[in-house]
This record gives sequence, structure tokens and C-alpha cells, in this order.
Amino acid sequence: MTTSPSLASALFTDLYQLTMMQGYWKEGLHTQPATFDLYYRRNPYQGGYVVWAGLEVALEYLQGLHFTEGDLAYLGSLGLFGPEFLSALRDWRFTCQVTTFPEGSVVFPNEPLLTVHGPLWEAQLVETALLNVLNFQSLIATKAARCLSAAQGSPHGGSIIEFGARRAQGPDGALGAARAAVVGGATGSSNVQAAALYGLAPLGTHAHAWVESFPGELDAFRAYARLYPDSTTLLLDTIDTLESGLPNAITVARELREAGHELRGVRLDSGDLAYLSSRCRAALDEAGFPDVKIVASNDLSEFVIESVIREGGRVDIYGIGTQLATGGGEGGGALGGVYKLVALNGKDRMKLTGDPAKTSVPGIKRVWRGADSGGRFVIDVITQGEDPAPRAGERVSDPGNPLKSSRLPGGLTWTDPRVTVLTGGERLKAPETLPQIQARAAEQLAHLPEGTRRLLNPHTYRVSLSEKLQERRDILMHDLRERHGL
Amino acid sequence: MTTSPSLASALFTDLYQLTMMQGYWKEGLHTQPATFDLYYRRNPYQGGYVVWAGLEVALEYLQGLHFTEGDLAYLGSLGLFGPEFLSALRDWRFTCQVTTFPEGSVVFPNEPLLTVHGPLWEAQLVETALLNVLNFQSLIATKAARCLSAAQGSPHGGSIIEFGARRAQGPDGALGAARAAVVGGATGSSNVQAAALYGLAPLGTHAHAWVESFPGELDAFRAYARLYPDSTTLLLDTIDTLESGLPNAITVARELREAGHELRGVRLDSGDLAYLSSRCRAALDEAGFPDVKIVASNDLSEFVIESVIREGGRVDIYGIGTQLATGGGEGGGALGGVYKLVALNGKDRMKLTGDPAKTSVPGIKRVWRGADSGGRFVIDVITQGEDPAPRAGERVSDPGNPLKSSRLPGGLTWTDPRVTVLTGGERLKAPETLPQIQARAAEQLAHLPEGTRRLLNPHTYRVSLSEKLQERRDILMHDLRERHGL
Repeated sequence: MTTSPSLASALFTDLYQLTMMQGYWKEGLHTQPATFDLYYRRNPYQGGYVVWAGLEVALEYLQGLHFTEGDLAYLGSLGLFGPEFLSALRDWRFTCQVTTFPEGSVVFPNEPLLTVHGPLWEAQLVETALLNVLNFQSLIATKAARCLSAAQGSPHGGSIIEFGARRAQGPDGALGAARAAVVGGATGSSNVQAAALYGLAPLGTHAHAWVESFPGELDAFRAYARLYPDSTTLLLDTIDTLESGLPNAITVARELREAGHELRGVRLDSGDLAYLSSRCRAALDEAGFPDVKIVASNDLSEFVIESVIREGGRVDIYGIGTQLATGGGEGGGALGGVYKLVALNGKDRMKLTGDPAKTSVPGIKRVWRGADSGGRFVIDVITQGEDPAPRAGERVSDPGNPLKSSRLPGGLTWTDPRVTVLTGGERLKAPETLPQIQARAAEQLAHLPEGTRRLLNPHTYRVSLSEKLQERRDILMHDLRERHGL
Repeated sequence: MTTSPSLASALFTDLYQLTMMQGYWKEGLHTQPATFDLYYRRNPYQGGYVVWAGLEVALEYLQGLHFTEGDLAYLGSLGLFGPEFLSALRDWRFTCQVTTFPEGSVVFPNEPLLTVHGPLWEAQLVETALLNVLNFQSLIATKAARCLSAAQGSPHGGSIIEFGARRAQGPDGALGAARAAVVGGATGSSNVQAAALYGLAPLGTHAHAWVESFPGELDAFRAYARLYPDSTTLLLDTIDTLESGLPNAITVARELREAGHELRGVRLDSGDLAYLSSRCRAALDEAGFPDVKIVASNDLSEFVIESVIREGGRVDIYGIGTQLATGGGEGGGALGGVYKLVALNGKDRMKLTGDPAKTSVPGIKRVWRGADSGGRFVIDVITQGEDPAPRAGERVSDPGNPLKSSRLPGGLTWTDPRVTVLTGGERLKAPETLPQIQARAAEQLAHLPEGTRRLLNPHTYRVSLSEKLQERRDILMHDLRERHGL
């Protein structure tokens, strides 16, 4: 189940989509075949890639999309929509063809991540919801991949869990964040509703309030361990991590073992996590508890994780809240995906602009990914839809700057990673499960050049336009300027 | 109607709330009277205040909160919860007393914004959802207030609308953002579902795709104006704002007037908004259309708005997307509200910490706001719950640093702005409407010292602890350290 509980209304859109739909309908333009590309221009977090997420949620939305009688009554009340148009909306369904990267793919700026092709008024309406879900979940999945990548930088390994429900942007923001965090590599979430909806293991420890509700910390630890003898993680810092929490946790670990159980973990939630975790690890090992996991939380990010590891920290599991649930940090907060008309009625379309980097690439296109003999991704090339795979020596150019061109190297294997997943309202393959999607993301990230995975100042992965596509764009741009006397 | 569609499940919580609840219940601690304070420590955006928002949504959640049979079955499946506890959850309701600032109030760091008092297992469960909704909506309402304050800095006035559904964090994030933006002063939203849910006017123009669907821009403008003769705002930059969009818009404005209608507005979505808006204003005025509004969009923030105005821009309405819907910008992204146990069974509770600024203030408390004879807010003082209003000359101290103390000035009028709004599952007054809440926010912001409203480097509004409360906190801290041998 991938439902986003609040993504169930056809009214979840911007007003102008509906006013334009009525316009297309009145003008008889509404069934003209249109093609829209969804893409983004800049990687979030100043990073080198995006993990594409939210697709299953978006497809479920597209399949279920319809106007209820209540929706039509509301629209009627606005004084903007005529009864005949509203009546036409009654049987309206989304029948367009959707071609896209599978969820969990690693993707890059300026390539069409998802292409909607079909009647103009259908393709227009869904812009808002598609961008909302895919921008957000891709932002979070990418953050999770970055945090996991940092955690795995330790010689002792490391994993991440999502702890951010209290800081997420709304209840459904928390659900979407939990789902997307798992796509990007999180082991699970503390959010029980997310766990129930998405079939995850809900995870958790206890809070400071638990300790404060007992006469002493040891009483509180014992009570928790008595109740959850096989799944207790004790929070150490209510009084003092090393002076009180740690010795009390070791006492409880011994008592659990005597009773035939094992303490699962301890959690650090303040202070110098590198120092405290290495002290805890040493003390737990010495006391005979090398398998007790150390969980750390408290304003973590990929950069804090890196620093904990660099300073000799021995954290096993990072519980990441705010930064993971909101995609926070420099260059975060939102992924700027856009959805642009690129063809209408068989003709190329583009929006002129003074900034060449923001000019869209017209026409129905295809994305080819070139990998070397080791399977490592080397370059993505966007071609015209009808063209064959790129060939060695072919000239390609930068989408943002046609003057930056080069010839394709040899020895690459070319595949078209995008698939058509929906047409006529029908899914062309079964929905994927979160474990499948998470596995794809992990596998794709492993095929990225190491420099591109770097958290800051990464090597820019090349996305190029084929020479023919570049020429086609130039001609259209020239024609448009001529026609408008610019 | 203030519902957040996805805030309808008791499972929307962190797992540890439920495992702790079972623990309290097994230990017979669950009905002990507990008091939790919700507060935050730092203003977002490096600003001087927060507009308190999300309360009506939170109260609706608290009133409706219960476990369905499906919830109980799911919890049973986790292997963590016993049948007797699950059976006890069947009749569980939220009966605690909730005391809080009215929604739309202007509030400050370290003061208890909302206090929950009642049975421990009830007060514990709701932490996650309360923080989620109130952190998020307060973050956005504050952003809206800042953007509106910037817009109103123009000698010609200015208003803001929320345009961010496509960049918000999930569908419900978009709904919550629209609602909170209105609390903070936005005139409306482009989000149709938000408009329907919250009784707002949905707002909008048209997209570039509209223009690209017609043979020429003028055809596209005419078709739109024909369809919406009294509510047309034309987007000027599909081809070229000044060379094409503006003259075509003036043509359509003339044609509309001849037919007895008036063009409502034009929208700028790229380029130098200060320059373009002042050129558009001059041309529209000269052509006899001084009432056609100029709407601007494209990555706006309070600082961009300030700069547009400073450079002589003539924008009437700012359509703000990403930054408003996600609370973006320096110091944004999340409001770090926390929810801390401050009393249990009549005894003070606090969490010790090495950082005095993060030590909570124990006990049941009261907030007093002191205003001068002009009604301007001067200082907030937190006292013990049973104490009378502060008096001139009384010593008060900084919550983060007891060494910073001073004596209260005279001539202030003291009021306790917080009210008890919920008890025994019943609302003590009728829910407030968004217009009421928006009016309160506007009125309260007008009573803030001007320096505190400044967008950057504001004057820090003083929040102090009464001497008695400070002493009580010191004694408890001392006792705790003694007891734990620290």
C-alpha cells in the first residue's frame, strides 16, 4: 500500500490548471495530444545526484483520479466554471501514457524523469500533484542516500533510521518522508502510521519522560527491560550519559542476560557523540556486551555523521530527525522540479527565456545511459525519441550551454532506463514494493562514479544532448524569435 | 473546517509513545497527573518572533483521537503489546486539559506555548502529532508574516498569496502550508483543495502552456479573457515580457473594457521584477489602466520582496511558492519545538543537561505579557502558576542565563494571554475561523516593537523568569545533581 492519505482529491491542484482545462475544452483543444516532461535543473544539497522517489504514490494517484459530486459542486460554487464543463468532468479520467525512470533510479539534472503523453486537459491537470509528490519524495530519498553513504563510511559499518515525525511538514509530510527515507536506504522509521501503511518495522527506544516518571533511572531502565526483554534500547542521557546512564544500562544488560535475554541497544541523544559513543563501546565491550548496538540521535545530518566517524565515534545506528524528514541543509528544503509542455499535436513546443540554462528541450525524447565494462555509469545522452542508441565518436553537447560539446567515448553499453508504466488508466506492470525499490536505489548508487557520490563538490555527472536534438532545439528557438520579431 | 485529512489516525505517533504508554499502564503510572509544556528555543529565519499557528487543527485532532479496531489489530501484530493493554486502548480518549496561546498570537522562545495537563499516558501519546502540526504551521505562518511585512514596506502597499503546492512537502504539507500562510497574512492560495477545506478564495492566473497551446500569444490572451472576463490575470513572459506580453495584455485590456469588463491583472514570472514591474505600471497607467494589478512570482522570499521594493518595483501582489510553502531560507525548514514533562503527580520534573540553555523550566507555570500605555508589548514574564501578575521593580532573569537579571519597569499593564481551551474532551469555546485568527495575528504583530519585527538582526524581545520560578528551578537542579552524585 503506497497511498498518501491526503492525495485522494482531484481538487489537489492549482486553480489555474482547472481554468485552463475549461479553456482548452471550450476552444476544442482539450483532446489534442500533448507531451509534458518533468525534470529538475539543480541537484539538491549541492550534491551529485537525485534518488528518484514517489513514483508508486504518483501512479496510484493518477489511476484513481476522478471528480466526485462534491468536487463538482464545490467548483460550481466558485462562479468560474460552466455546467457543461463540469458535466464533462464527471466522466473525466486520466488516460495518458506515462514513461519514466523506475522508482529508486539515480537521476540527474535536465533529463526528462517522467513524460506524460496524451490529451492536453488530462496532462495539464496533474502537474501540481505530480510535482508535489515527486519533488518531495525525491528530495528526502536523496537525503537518506547521502546520510546512509556517510554512515557506511565507518570501518564498522552503520545504518540509518528516520525519527523526524515531530519536525516533518505536516502529518502526511511525515508519512511521505518515512517512505522516501526507506527508498533512499533507511532501515525503518519511528512513525507507526508510516510503518502500518508501508509495511515497515516501526522502531523506537524511550524518551526522557519515561526515566523522569520513576524514582530513579535504574528503576526506569529495569521496568522497560522487564516489559520488552528482547527489544530494549535504553536512552542514556536523562541524568548523565557516562556517570549514570551507561553504568545503569550495563547493570540492566547483565540482569537481562541472567534472565535469558539480551539488551538490544543504548541511545545517545546529546553531547559529543564521537567521544560518548567510543566510551560506551569500550565499556560495553569490556563488560561482555559487544553486540549491544549504539544508537545516536540529536540534530544529525550527513555532515555530522561524517564528523562523528572521523573523530573515532562508534555509532551503529543513526536516528535522523529534522534534516531527514524535511530534506534540510544547504541547498535543501525543496527540489525544484518543473513540468513543461514539449510537444503539442505533433509539433515541438518550448518556452523562450533570456536564460539559456532555463530553456526547455522540445519534442518527444529518449534518455540513454552509457555504462563502462564494469557497469559504472559514465554519461546520459538525451536523443530524439525515434533515434537509435548513441555511438562512439558522436558529438553531444551540454543542455545548458551548446558551446560545451564533445565526442562520445567508445566502450560504453547503452540502455534506455525509462519504461512506460501507465496507459489508458492501466498499469503495464505490477506496482513495486518498497524493498524492491530500496534495492534498486542501492544497486544504482553502487554504479555511480565515486566522485559523483561525494557529499560536497562532487564530480558533475554528464548529461548531454545528441547533436540532432541540439540542432532541433536551435532551429525551434530561432523560428520562435523570428516569428515574434525578437 | 480545519481538518488535516491525514491527521485522523491514532497511529500517527512515534512507536516509543505507545511502548511507554504500555509501560506506564503496566506499572500503574498511567493515570498519574502529568504536565507537559510545548515550547521552542530559537526563532526561525533569524527573526524576532513566531506566529503561533495550527492550534485549531491540533485541537480537532485531540478531540477525535481514538484507536480503531484496525489500529488495535495492527498494534497486536507487532508482538510488542499485550491483549489487556490493547483492550484498555479501545476506550482510550484524550481528556487532558489544554492551556495555550490563542492561534495567531505572536510568541517567543522559551515560553510555554501550550500546556497539556492530565493522565500521563494521554499526555504522552499526543507529543508527536502536536509537535508536528504546531511546529510546521507556526513555521509557515511566521514566514507569511515576514513576507507580508516586506510587501507592506512599499509606499504603494502590497499583499501576498500562497502559490507553493508543487514544491510543498507532500499533498497535506501543501494544505497545511496554505492554511498557515493565511494565518500569517496571505490573502489566499492557488491550491483548490485548500480553498475548499478552509473556505478560502482560490486564486490563479494561467501557465506558459496555455500560451503555447495557441497560434500566438494574443490569441491565447483573448481566449482566456473571453472565458473569464472579470477575473483574468495574464502571464506576460512566455515570449518576451515587454516586447510581446505587455502590449498584448494592453490590447486585451482595451477589448475587455469595450465589452464592459476590466482586466484584473498581469503576472511577471521571470527577469528583473523591479524593472519589469515599474515598466508595466507606467505603460498600464499611460494606457488608462491604473487598476490592473501587477502580480509577481518566481522564487520569491521576504528578502527578494524587500529588494524589489527598494529598487522601485511596483508589484501589487506577490505570489510566493517554495519559500512560503516549505518555510525555506536561512534558519528555516523546521521549527524546533519540544514537549517536555515539567510536573508529575504534583512534583516538579526537569531533564538535567550540560547546557543551561536547554534545561527545561519545571512546574506548572503562567505567562504574563506586559504592555506599555500604547498597548505595545514590552516583556513576557513566566511565573509560578499560582503567583499574581508581576510588579514593577520585581527582579526577573533570563531563562537561558540566570546571571542576566534585571528589575521590571513600571507603567506596564499585565495580562495572561493563555486560555484553557480543552478539558475532558470538550472544547471550552467555539472553534475560531481563519479570518478571526488572521485578524488576531495582524493585530498582535502591530503591537510588537518595530525592532522586533525587523527581518534580520531584530531586537530580541525579552522573555524572563520571575525570581521565585528561577529559585525553584535552581533548587530542583541542585537536588537532582545531589541525588545523582553529580
